[in-house]
Amino acid sequence: MARLKLKLQLYCGDEIAMGPGKADLLEAIAREGSISGAGRAMGMSYRRAWLLVDVMNRCFAKPLVETHPGGGKLAGARLTAEGGAALAAYRALSAQVEGGVPGADYAALEAAIRVAPLEAQLHG
Amino acid sequence: MARLKLKLQLYCGDEIAMGPGKADLLEAIAREGSISGAGRAMGMSYRRAWLLVDVMNRCFAKPLVETHPGGGKLAGARLTAEGGAALAAYRALSAQVEGGVPGADYAALEAAIRVAPLEAQLHG
Repeated sequence: MARLKLKLQLYCGDEIAMGPGKADLLEAIAREGSISGAGRAMGMSYRRAWLLVDVMNRCFAKPLVETHPGGGKLAGARLTAEGGAALAAYRALSAQVEGGVPGADYAALEAAIRVAPLEAQLHG
Repeated sequence: MARLKLKLQLYCGDEIAMGPGKADLLEAIAREGSISGAGRAMGMSYRRAWLLVDVMNRCFAKPLVETHPGGGKLAGARLTAEGGAALAAYRALSAQVEGGVPGADYAALEAAIRVAPLEAQLHG
């Protein structure tokens, strides 16, 4: 399965409520204790991390992340109970879906794909 | 499952040998009989369609698409036997993986996600 990438996205209207990047961000917030720390750990700007949290909080019936008042560098954030539950359900669903991959079709594709691509030819 | 999007990508080194867009392109080539016609039907440039075909042909042990000599607008393309087989295996694998989705974790996520997101607040 090393050569397979499965991306599982859950939509809310036109927005992505949950996906691989948002799940990773939730994990980082739980670990780092702040949106800015989580963004830094993931190499994304505070603004981008904040926007992803905002989408999640607007897409779920209850917010997944709550921020502590305080302001500045001391402001913290943590997952709500709903946030922890959504993250766990997403991880479990991903594992379940990946568990469904083995079989003849995957084996046929894996056997047909080279270990590395041939070199691209330069054209005009 | 309407709110779920599953993207299944198969890698060859750093390149994506097969994924949703490439599978759609193979189908379009089989239907349209040329790379240019397939690209047009999918709203992509000839150059982009050609590059995607080139990646597939370099990633698989045998080319998935063969082009007919002829040149200009009459040049045609069709799937090889390996191309037809890879497309069929990818579609079957996708269906199999999607069939693995139903269950408690998916139900929990679906129940927690709103039908539409709340409006974004404007910040500074």
